[in-house]
Amino acid sequence: MGNIAYVSGEFIELDDAKVSIQDRGFQFGDSIYEVIKLYDGKLFKADEHFSRLLNSAEMIRLNLEYNLEDLKKIALEVVDKNTDNQSGSLYIQVTRGIAPRNHSFDFDLKSTVIMYLLPAQPFPSELWESGVNAVTLPDTRWSYCNIKTTNLLPNILANQAAKEEGAFEGVFISDDNIVIEGTSSNIFIVKDGRVITHPINKKLLSGITREIVLELAEENFDVEEKIFTLEELYNADEVFITSTTKEVLAVVEIDDKVINQAKVGKITKELHNLYREYKQDLNNF
Amino acid sequence: MGNIAYVSGEFIELDDAKVSIQDRGFQFGDSIYEVIKLYDGKLFKADEHFSRLLNSAEMIRLNLEYNLEDLKKIALEVVDKNTDNQSGSLYIQVTRGIAPRNHSFDFDLKSTVIMYLLPAQPFPSELWESGVNAVTLPDTRWSYCNIKTTNLLPNILANQAAKEEGAFEGVFISDDNIVIEGTSSNIFIVKDGRVITHPINKKLLSGITREIVLELAEENFDVEEKIFTLEELYNADEVFITSTTKEVLAVVEIDDKVINQAKVGKITKELHNLYREYKQDLNNF
Repeated sequence: MGNIAYVSGEFIELDDAKVSIQDRGFQFGDSIYEVIKLYDGKLFKADEHFSRLLNSAEMIRLNLEYNLEDLKKIALEVVDKNTDNQSGSLYIQVTRGIAPRNHSFDFDLKSTVIMYLLPAQPFPSELWESGVNAVTLPDTRWSYCNIKTTNLLPNILANQAAKEEGAFEGVFISDDNIVIEGTSSNIFIVKDGRVITHPINKKLLSGITREIVLELAEENFDVEEKIFTLEELYNADEVFITSTTKEVLAVVEIDDKVINQAKVGKITKELHNLYREYKQDLNNF
Repeated sequence: MGNIAYVSGEFIELDDAKVSIQDRGFQFGDSIYEVIKLYDGKLFKADEHFSRLLNSAEMIRLNLEYNLEDLKKIALEVVDKNTDNQSGSLYIQVTRGIAPRNHSFDFDLKSTVIMYLLPAQPFPSELWESGVNAVTLPDTRWSYCNIKTTNLLPNILANQAAKEEGAFEGVFISDDNIVIEGTSSNIFIVKDGRVITHPINKKLLSGITREIVLELAEENFDVEEKIFTLEELYNADEVFITSTTKEVLAVVEIDDKVINQAKVGKITKELHNLYREYKQDLNNF
């Protein structure tokens, strides 16, 4: 079966879906994106993702002519046209539009909007039982990691480096030794029963799963959004990462240092269960 | 007349030239580029630009299946097919290729290679007589500004901000108050007869014009590649920026501080003359 993509007003087979080589998204990375998980044809946390997209647009001063409802309407059409792929993810990318090459830009450009479904990549559920390993990497990114842009070269190079070191995830460490976030996840530690994660600022992206997990944690544990060092990471009682696909995933080894005797921690497990319940509750969709 | 672009083996009208929405250049900014000036149909410093492109490819671990001679051959074909535009610039962009969306990558992907001519944008020559103004901006970019990638969002936002402040160019200043480079130029100061510019390291791109000007300066003046602060910039005897289109261009005002009584400096003028002579000498092409 095919895969029908949306490209600026047209529905078209993914393999034929193209953008101009003069698109600013292509030439400058002048572009933002979101990935929304589908569960049985339903978009998980669509409003939150589209809000964040609109927020990213505003932060790079991109005048998007669609509001949240317009975007959702297109998204639902894309889902409807791909009935054989209802458990993958929806990829959305918005660029500032097509223009003759020039660094400075025109605020009246018509944005390029593309959406299509990424295939389901079932998460290997044994990893939730075993936990995973991670390596730390210097954070080489720019100053506004709170914006979800397609300037992703530092991320892909870090992700590739982590994979080549045999690690499941790479974790960015700032010059001053602070643990920031994973290449495609947020990271939490548990110390003396307290759940700790980096506060939201320009250095990291406010993950949708991070937000949900923080809410769930606050109802059940002591929670603190504060910076912590690499040493605190190594010495944590438990470590876990969060993302849409990873949910709440224990990290049991970091840079060859074993965490919690290489076992999934109690609080990590409980938070994952709470997250699963939350997700099951379709009222949250 | 049309504008014939090259896209991965095909010659096609620019307005019809497209890339897949699954191209990693589009989705991740996983891509590098060069702009080469054309003078009367001749590519200026083609070898240097293509060498730098190959170097950028290597630094982002992109396996480009073309060597310098292959790329030059394609470039000359593009120039030949656009006989009515022989004084613009050649734009070259190479991406890691097309693949299902995934941060980590396959080294065997077939790169996407595009080339086309940007129209001539005659530089307003009165600016070489009057000099220009510039503003300084925080350097928000990633840690590898020595690689000419299309992760250009920080550059375009800075360039736009400078334009909106009524400035001709924006100059990046690091957190520790060091003058790095312009948003699309290198910057030099002259102090007590000595020509000074930031040494090449990961913080800036080694501009082709910068290299030529340094060579010319070394034959005629005391030259030092060393870091200098914002205060040294404000207190310089002369300030100039270099780039292919700007050549050697005096900066006579920075952040509302006047340089050299708002006049083009003597050494700046001499270096511009030397650069002009160098360029005229077609043997250098």
